[in-house]
Amino acid sequence: QSSPSSHMIEKETAETHRPDTFLRDSDGGSSVEAGSIRARFEKMIREAQDSVCAAIEAADGGAKFKEDVWSRPGGGGGISRVLQDGAVWEKAGVNVSVVYGVMPPEAYRAANPAANAAENGNFKPEPVPFFAAGVSSVLHPKNPFAPTLHFNYRYFETDARKDAPGAPRSWWFGGGTDLTPAYIFEEDVKHFHTVQKNACDKFDPSFYPRFKKWCDDYFYIKHRNERRGLGGIFFDDLNDYDQEMLLSFATECANSVVDAYIPIIERRKDTPFTDKHKAWQQLRRGRYVEFNLVYDRGTTFGLKTGGRIESILVSLPLTARWEYDHKPEEGSEEWKLLDACINPKEWV
Amino acid sequence: QSSPSSHMIEKETAETHRPDTFLRDSDGGSSVEAGSIRARFEKMIREAQDSVCAAIEAADGGAKFKEDVWSRPGGGGGISRVLQDGAVWEKAGVNVSVVYGVMPPEAYRAANPAANAAENGNFKPEPVPFFAAGVSSVLHPKNPFAPTLHFNYRYFETDARKDAPGAPRSWWFGGGTDLTPAYIFEEDVKHFHTVQKNACDKFDPSFYPRFKKWCDDYFYIKHRNERRGLGGIFFDDLNDYDQEMLLSFATECANSVVDAYIPIIERRKDTPFTDKHKAWQQLRRGRYVEFNLVYDRGTTFGLKTGGRIESILVSLPLTARWEYDHKPEEGSEEWKLLDACINPKEWV
Repeated sequence: QSSPSSHMIEKETAETHRPDTFLRDSDGGSSVEAGSIRARFEKMIREAQDSVCAAIEAADGGAKFKEDVWSRPGGGGGISRVLQDGAVWEKAGVNVSVVYGVMPPEAYRAANPAANAAENGNFKPEPVPFFAAGVSSVLHPKNPFAPTLHFNYRYFETDARKDAPGAPRSWWFGGGTDLTPAYIFEEDVKHFHTVQKNACDKFDPSFYPRFKKWCDDYFYIKHRNERRGLGGIFFDDLNDYDQEMLLSFATECANSVVDAYIPIIERRKDTPFTDKHKAWQQLRRGRYVEFNLVYDRGTTFGLKTGGRIESILVSLPLTARWEYDHKPEEGSEEWKLLDACINPKEWV
Repeated sequence: QSSPSSHMIEKETAETHRPDTFLRDSDGGSSVEAGSIRARFEKMIREAQDSVCAAIEAADGGAKFKEDVWSRPGGGGGISRVLQDGAVWEKAGVNVSVVYGVMPPEAYRAANPAANAAENGNFKPEPVPFFAAGVSSVLHPKNPFAPTLHFNYRYFETDARKDAPGAPRSWWFGGGTDLTPAYIFEEDVKHFHTVQKNACDKFDPSFYPRFKKWCDDYFYIKHRNERRGLGGIFFDDLNDYDQEMLLSFATECANSVVDAYIPIIERRKDTPFTDKHKAWQQLRRGRYVEFNLVYDRGTTFGLKTGGRIESILVSLPLTARWEYDHKPEEGSEEWKLLDACINPKEWV
C-alpha cells in the first residue's frame, strides 16, 4: 500500500514567513547566480502570483487570500494562496512552487518521452534528479454564468544522475491558460481567446493555432469524448526554441491572465440565476474533477511523487455533482455548451 | 487524444427489455451449457441485483429504481438500475454486466500480474480476449449518519488468443463489501463486520482476517494516507481454491449484503442533523471520488477499456465537496472517523 515513490520527496514543513527565494544557494539563492533561468523564472512566477491575487481580491471586493508558506529541508518550497467562500469566488487558489526532487523513472518517462527515448539506448532506468518551478491557479466563481479559469506556467530541468555525471541535462517549459464556463457567452470566449492570441503573436504566428489545438487535445476527457471547457492555449515539453525567448513568452502569458479573465468576471458575477443553472454548473464541476483526477499531468504527477496534497488538490471545486445519465435537451443553452466541448470551435 | 483502446469494445446499444441471458450461445446462452460457471455466475448476480433493489426500495419507502438494459452486438450486455433522489438514498446504483472484450496487453498486465508473469517468457504482449461478469453497487444515503455501502462480486476468464489457441486460459474471482460512514457508530460497524465474518467463516477461517486486511489495504487513498472508509472484506485474483467453492463463497457474500446493511439504515435514516454534519459527509464524499477516480481498479479499468461510462461512474456520489486544508478538531466525532480511516481497527 505504500510504495517507495511516496517517500521520494521529503515531507514539507510549514514556514512562518516567505523567504526571498526557494532556490538552493548553488541555483541562484546566492546573488552570484541570480541571473540564472531558474532564478528569473522563480521571480516571474512570484510576481504573477502577487498580481493575480491582487486582481482577484479587488474584484471579489472583500475576501482575502489565506497564505501558506512551506519548504523542504533539502531546498525548495512554495507559497499557496487560497481564497474560499468569497463574494464572487467559491474557491480560488494561486500557488507557486519550486521543487527539487528525484523522479522515479516511470514518472520521468511519462513527463518527458522524447528525452527518455534519446537516453534509452545508453542507460538503465534510474531515478532522475529534477528541478521544477511553476505557478498554478484555478479560480472557481459562484455564479454559474461566470467561468472557471485555470492557468499554469512551469519550468523543468533534469540534472545529470549521480552515477552518470556527464549525462545530458534537459530543460523544458510548459503551461497554458484555459477557460471553463458552464454557459457560453460568445463575447466572453472571443475576448478570452483574443488575449491568448495576442500574447502568442508577439512571439511566433504559429504559436496560437498550435497551442490552441494542443489545449483542445490536452483537456480531453477521453471516457466522455468531451473537453473540460472551451480551451485557450496549452504547451508542454517546449525546448526547441531559444531559452530566453521561451522565458519571455511564459512571462507574457502569465501577465495576460488578468486582462483575459477579470473583464469577463465583472460582466457575469451578478447575473441572476436559478437552481437549474446552478445544478448544471455543478455537473460541469463534476467533469472538472474527472479531468483533473484521471488525466491532468500536473495532478497525477503530483499525487505520485508526493507533492503537497492540499496545494495540488486546491484545483478541485468546492462542490461538484454527478447525476446518472444526465442529457441536456437538444438546442438548450446547456446543450450548446456541451456541443462546444465535444466539437471545439475557432473563437478568433 | 483518441487511442485505439477507446475502440476496443463496441459501443453498447439500449435494449427495451431484459434478455434471459447476456451470454453467447456457446457460453451457456443455449440450454446445453447452462451449467457452466459463466452461466451460473450470471444467474447469481442477477438474483443478487433483484433482491438488493427490492430491499432498497422497501427501505426507501417510495422511490423506484430506473432500469437501463444494454447489449453489445458481439454478445454481452448489462442491466443498470439507479434510484436517484429517494427519501433515504441520494443515489443508489446496482449494476450487473456480462462483458466479452479484448484487453489491451497493458490492461491485462494491470489486471492479472501473475498470469502475465507466467506468460512473459513465451509470448509477446498481444490483445487478450476476456470474459467478465459482475454485480456492482454503491448506495449513498442522504442522512450524514447513514453510511454509504459498496459491494461488487465479479468473475473473470481470459480466453486463449487467436494466434495461440493452446495458450493457458485463466480465471479468477474478485469482490467484496465495504462500509463508508461519515460518523462512527460502533454498534453499526461491529454488526457490519460480523456479517462479513460469518459469511467468510462458512468457507475458511482464514478468509475473514485475510480479506479484512486486504480491504483495508485496497481502499487506501495513498496521497492522503487514509482509507476511504471502515472496510469490510475484499479479495481479488482468487483462483487458488476450488472453482465451485469460490462460486458458493461469492454467492454467500452477495446474499449477505441486505442483512449487513439494511438494519443500519433503519437505525440512522431519520437521525436529525445539522449543516455541519452534512458538510463533513460531503467532504468524505469528496474522498470517495478521489479513491474511485484515482485508484479503484474497476473504475480505472472500465474507463480505459471503454465500458459503459454511466454505469461505471454511477458509483460517484450525487454531490461532493473539497475544502482547502480542512482539519477536524482533535477529539471531535469527525476526527474519530478520520483516525479510524488512518489507523484501521479490528471491529469483531
